[in-house]
Parts: sequence; structure tokens; C-alpha cells
Amino acid sequence: MKIPGFRFAAAAAGFKKKGGLDVALLVGDDAYPAAAVFTRNIVRAAPVLVAEQRVLGGPLRALLVNAGNANACTGEAGLQAVYQTTNFVAQALACPVEQIASASTGVIGQVLQAELIEAQMPSLIAALSEEKATDLADAILTTDRFRKVESTQLTQGNQTAHFLGICKGAGMIHPDLGGAGKLPPAAGPLHATMLGFLLTDAKSSAEQLQRCLEQAMEQSFNQVSVDGDTSTNDTVFLLASGKSELELSDEELTQALLTLCRPLARSMVKDGEGAEHVVDLVVRGLPSDEEARQVARTIATSPLVKTALAGRDANWGRLLAAAGRSGVHFDASQAQIHIDGVCICQNGLLVSEEADRAASERMKKEDYSIEIVLGAGPGSWTYTTCDLGHAYIDINASYRS
Amino acid sequence: MKIPGFRFAAAAAGFKKKGGLDVALLVGDDAYPAAAVFTRNIVRAAPVLVAEQRVLGGPLRALLVNAGNANACTGEAGLQAVYQTTNFVAQALACPVEQIASASTGVIGQVLQAELIEAQMPSLIAALSEEKATDLADAILTTDRFRKVESTQLTQGNQTAHFLGICKGAGMIHPDLGGAGKLPPAAGPLHATMLGFLLTDAKSSAEQLQRCLEQAMEQSFNQVSVDGDTSTNDTVFLLASGKSELELSDEELTQALLTLCRPLARSMVKDGEGAEHVVDLVVRGLPSDEEARQVARTIATSPLVKTALAGRDANWGRLLAAAGRSGVHFDASQAQIHIDGVCICQNGLLVSEEADRAASERMKKEDYSIEIVLGAGPGSWTYTTCDLGHAYIDINASYRS
Repeated sequence: MKIPGFRFAAAAAGFKKKGGLDVALLVGDDAYPAAAVFTRNIVRAAPVLVAEQRVLGGPLRALLVNAGNANACTGEAGLQAVYQTTNFVAQALACPVEQIASASTGVIGQVLQAELIEAQMPSLIAALSEEKATDLADAILTTDRFRKVESTQLTQGNQTAHFLGICKGAGMIHPDLGGAGKLPPAAGPLHATMLGFLLTDAKSSAEQLQRCLEQAMEQSFNQVSVDGDTSTNDTVFLLASGKSELELSDEELTQALLTLCRPLARSMVKDGEGAEHVVDLVVRGLPSDEEARQVARTIATSPLVKTALAGRDANWGRLLAAAGRSGVHFDASQAQIHIDGVCICQNGLLVSEEADRAASERMKKEDYSIEIVLGAGPGSWTYTTCDLGHAYIDINASYRS
Repeated sequence: MKIPGFRFAAAAAGFKKKGGLDVALLVGDDAYPAAAVFTRNIVRAAPVLVAEQRVLGGPLRALLVNAGNANACTGEAGLQAVYQTTNFVAQALACPVEQIASASTGVIGQVLQAELIEAQMPSLIAALSEEKATDLADAILTTDRFRKVESTQLTQGNQTAHFLGICKGAGMIHPDLGGAGKLPPAAGPLHATMLGFLLTDAKSSAEQLQRCLEQAMEQSFNQVSVDGDTSTNDTVFLLASGKSELELSDEELTQALLTLCRPLARSMVKDGEGAEHVVDLVVRGLPSDEEARQVARTIATSPLVKTALAGRDANWGRLLAAAGRSGVHFDASQAQIHIDGVCICQNGLLVSEEADRAASERMKKEDYSIEIVLGAGPGSWTYTTCDLGHAYIDINASYRS
């Protein structure tokens, strides 16, 4: 899992109460073309505000990341902490501070303790290695139960481009990521803490990276939801070292990113705080994709639907009731619902008690789909979500303490 | 708790698995002017569809209500069951069937068993009494832990008008009630199973009753949320027997309804499935009430906020993060948050560790307010909501089984 041009290191700085790796450094041999997408939540953490400016400003040499403190809602002191900590990196690498961006995840409302990072700088720099990507993957975890890493490669002629993706995320997950420098939309629900680091040795420009990253987000991270709550810190970076000399078309690059991001996005749902089931909610038959998306989002975030998933209860009435309050018009008497292929509702009515039992049986599976057809239109959307059970309450009723 | 002109009866028909009263009858001495509001969920139960037509059609003589089966998503067979059961009442009272409306609450997707109601008709009719309002209040409960009844009276000169309000509701509670005959709005989140029965012996017209009922709903039931999930069956009826001969102004009537409905709405939140805390979320300082409402609704339905309430954790960062994804613009650096009067966040920043501890201490109370000030604008809105704890999961992961 090496990507020519990049080195990694992690250390235990003391941000996580439980201890372990919690700060990491990703360093390029040079400053490389970079792109990023950030949360569209209008409450944005200090590292997001600074990273956005630096990605827009030019190539990046290094990324600094910590877990355990989100440095969000920390005002001027939070911004100063970002300036200070990225400066530690810039000094160690003898490069302009504008080439360093950072990302943070953890508790909101506490200023990042810059001195904890300063203390780790010598050991981080000393530890940098092409082989240590998994250390970074471990250092960024918070409530996550497992490490999230994907890789792929693309060969054309005798040239091969390598791709590596690392992410974290388990709660406050409903990514709605938009490009750097774009204002958030004026209205509409915005919804994730997820951090993602995508690396390649393909040859690309910052503009191409940004285009393809935004495209890939729409079809991966922006289609998953754990709890509908969008974080103040969501960030995905994409850097290209160009070491392979292989230049890809937009389509090829986007496709390679999706090969990383789709399984990464799914792994966040699988790791959804306390989740026991990963469910693909497919809404079809509406006039437009946007309407299908609105219905899918309402169902995917309904507490009554998500508790029914936890209870393995084929409560199709709750699915239909959630669709009915989404604000999208449809004819409920046309509704069809399939749970893992079992048709439980047709023409808005229960098919049979047998279908109900069969569907509930299928819901014991870890992974299945629910397909909701609400008419004959071409619009469709898929959201990947999870159940809401006791473990979510345990984790979130006592996260800070 | 008698209201001149009205009699009540309840029986155990077998709709509730646990047994007990589950069908009730409310009968006027005559057909009386009536008004009603219904869920704006576009998936509407059979009793809602029929009741809407009958309220628009003229005065009502009686209301039939059952708990344990919502008769929702039951198509033509469900409608037939409403026609049949209201006809049993019409025959027993020797009045036109158009003067009978009904309401149902319970499991979605099962056709109401008309024969269970038919079997109870003789005993219901025989039991009718001015004194049995509490029997109706008990019969309509589902997952509710306690009966919900309020009364008030208004004296002018030597005349007194009496008011009685009965409701049920604990889960699938986020009422968004609109007038009879109005189409649901084209977009926007629609959100409750709650049933309400408001009675008075004031003298009024159907038109005045409808106006004042809609007004009162906006300032009571439509300002509470347990889980953000709006039911297919939400219905509130208002009937006026006119026995007191007292005629009220719109303002007086609305005020009297609010005197009933505000505590009734609050009692649903207090009874919110598994809830241990009732929290008034006050959002202020935005340009318009509508923007304040959108922020308040997003916070009131955020799983991360509601689990923090359960954990008695003054996690003000989650409050601000939820506001930030609401789609409403504000300057987070101006945000102020007070928990039960303790100022925990000022200028978007934590006031002190001491304030944090003090606020968390206040959150042990059963009842408190959270005030979120997001600027200097005149717009404000209040949502009353509750915490999301283990009991909600227990109740809803196994509701049908």
C-alpha cells in the first residue's frame, strides 16, 4: 500500500482519553496539486476554514491530522492553533506554511492544544515512511471500531497509476460535501464527522482533481447516512504526486476515485455507531432524481424506520409514512416495497402475512436492500444507511464524559 | 368534567394485544357544528380520508375511535371498514352516516376488523354517559404511559362555557396539522400519531371553530416533537354543542383552546416514548420566525442532540452543529446558548468549564429550557422536545411484535 511520492507517520499526542495514536502526518516529496471538499454545515471548524484557503491557494506539501479534539466552535483561538500547528510542520519540512493543511475530529468546543502537537513533531518527522499509511488510518479513528483503507490501481500500456484511500467516520455521519471556495446553498438540509485522504501517483492538475473529486463525492460519501447529523469538520483531501507520469481522463480518474470511495463510504455505515445492519435504500419511480433523493433521505433518517431495522421488523407502514412526510408528492396506492427481494407491499397494500414474515426473516442479514417504488417516473436515488439500536444511545449519551 | 350535550362510552374490543379499553364513542345530543385538522402526511389513513369529507359536509353527531389498529395503508378495504363501522353507529343512533366520523391509532397496514366494533355496539350505546370522558381518554392510549385530559371554563356575565380536551400520543409525534380540505404543501418537511378531541358547550359556527382550531394548533401541537416522525393518522376534532348559549370572539375561543392544547401537547412530549426530560428549545435572533422554526426543528429532531439530552450532557457544540446544517444562515461567532438560564456559550465560544458543569447539572431536571440566540433579528420559535434514550429503542424496535 505504498503510493510513490508520499510518506506517513503517526504518534500518540494525548488527544484521545483512551490513549493510542491520535496525530498523524502525511508528507509529499514535493508540494503536489491538491483538491478538497468540505462540510456544507455553516458552522465550520477552524481547520476547515484554513484548509479551504490553502487548497485554493496552490499545491500542498503536507497534511496534519488529529483525532480527539475537533477544534470546532473555538473562534480566533482555534484559528491560531491551526496557524501554529501547521507552522510546526512547515518549519520541520522547511517549506511555506501555505503548503500545509490540517484536519481535526473529536469533541466540539475545545481549542486544539498546539503544544501537544509541537511535542510530537520530532518523532513524527523521524518516523515518516512510505509504509506507514495504516498508522495514519489508525490515528484518525474516534468512535470507529475498525480501520478504513482501500486501494486500487490502473494500468495503461506499461504505466500504472496507484490509488490509496483512507477515511474515518462512525457517528455524526451524513456527508454533504461541497467544493472548496463555494458558499453553502441558501437552504436545504445539510448533513457528517468524516475525514478522508485520497492519494494517487497519477499526473493531474488541481482543477482536474477538484472536478473529479466533487463528482465522486456525489456518488459515494454524499449517499450515506448514519444519523443525519452533519459535522462541522467533514473534509476529504485528494493529492496527486504525478510520480507515475500517467495522465488520466476525467472519467477514468472519477471512476478510480469511486472504486476507493464507495467501499469507504459503505464501511462508515457498517461502522455506524452501534450498527448491526447496512441497508441500501433504493427509491425509484418518481419524476426526478432530486425528488427520489428527498424521499430516500427522509426514510434513511427516520428514527421509527431505523429502530424497526434494529428490531428486524418489516414494518413497511413506517417506510411509507416516512415517504409521505418527505414533502414529495406520489400516489401511495401505487407504492411497491421490496425487502431483500421479497415483495411485501404492492399497490400500497400488504401482499400477505407470509411475505411479511419472509421479509422480517431477511432483515436478520447484515446487509440487504429495501427498494421503494413510488410510481413509473425515471427518478431514482440510493441512500446507504444503518439501524438505530441501543449501542448508538450508549455511545452518544456519554461521548464527552 | 362534564360538557353539556356530550356523552361518552368505551369498551374492550380486542384491538390491543395487551387487552383493556380500545374502542370509544363520543355522542352529541344532536348533530353539532364541527371542525377538524388532519396530518399533512400525504399517506393518509382511511379514517382520515372519510372524516375529512364528513367534517366538510356538515355537523357531526358522533365520533368513533379505536386504538391498536390505525387502518392506514389499507386501501379500499380500509375505507369499506370505515363506512361499515360508522354505519353501525349511525344505525344505533338513527342518524345519517354522514354525521359520524372516526379516528384510529395503532399498527399501520392492517385493515380495521369491523366485526370487532360491531360486537361492541350494544354495550357502547348502553354505557353512554356524560361522566365517562376518562373512559374515552383511556381507550385511545397506545404506547402512552398516562391519560391526557385538560379542562377549563370561561364565564361572561352569568353564562359559563365549558371546555374539555382529551388527547393521546407518545411516539410518531411531530404534529403538522392542517385544515380539512386543504392540500398538503408542495414541499417542506411534514411531520405525528396523535389524536385529539376538543369539546365545548359554547355556541359557535363550523367556520369559527375551524378558524380558531387551526390557529390554536400552530401554537400548541404543531410546536412539539418526540421523534420527528409524522403519522398517517393525526387528527384533532373540535365540536361545540352550544348548550351554554355563550358566543365567544375568535380571540376568546382560540385562547380557550390554547388553554387546553398547550398542556395537552406538552403532556405528549412528557410521555414521549421513554422520555425522561421535557425541553423547551427556544431559538431567537433570526430575521424571521420561519427561519427560527427551521433551526428549532432541526435541533429538536437531531439524534445527536437528543442522545446528549438523555446523557445530561451540556454538549453545546452539537446544538450549534445541528443549527449549522439546518439550511438557515447565521453568524456562528454571534451565537449565545443558555441551558436552564446558565449561559454556556457566548460569541460562539464556551464560556467556561464551570458553566459547562453547571449546565450539565441543570440538565438532570425533568423540565428545562435551552435558549439559542443566533443574532439580533426579531424571528423566534419554540419547539418542545424530549431526550432519546434506551426506552425509545425498546419500544420501537419491537412495536409490532
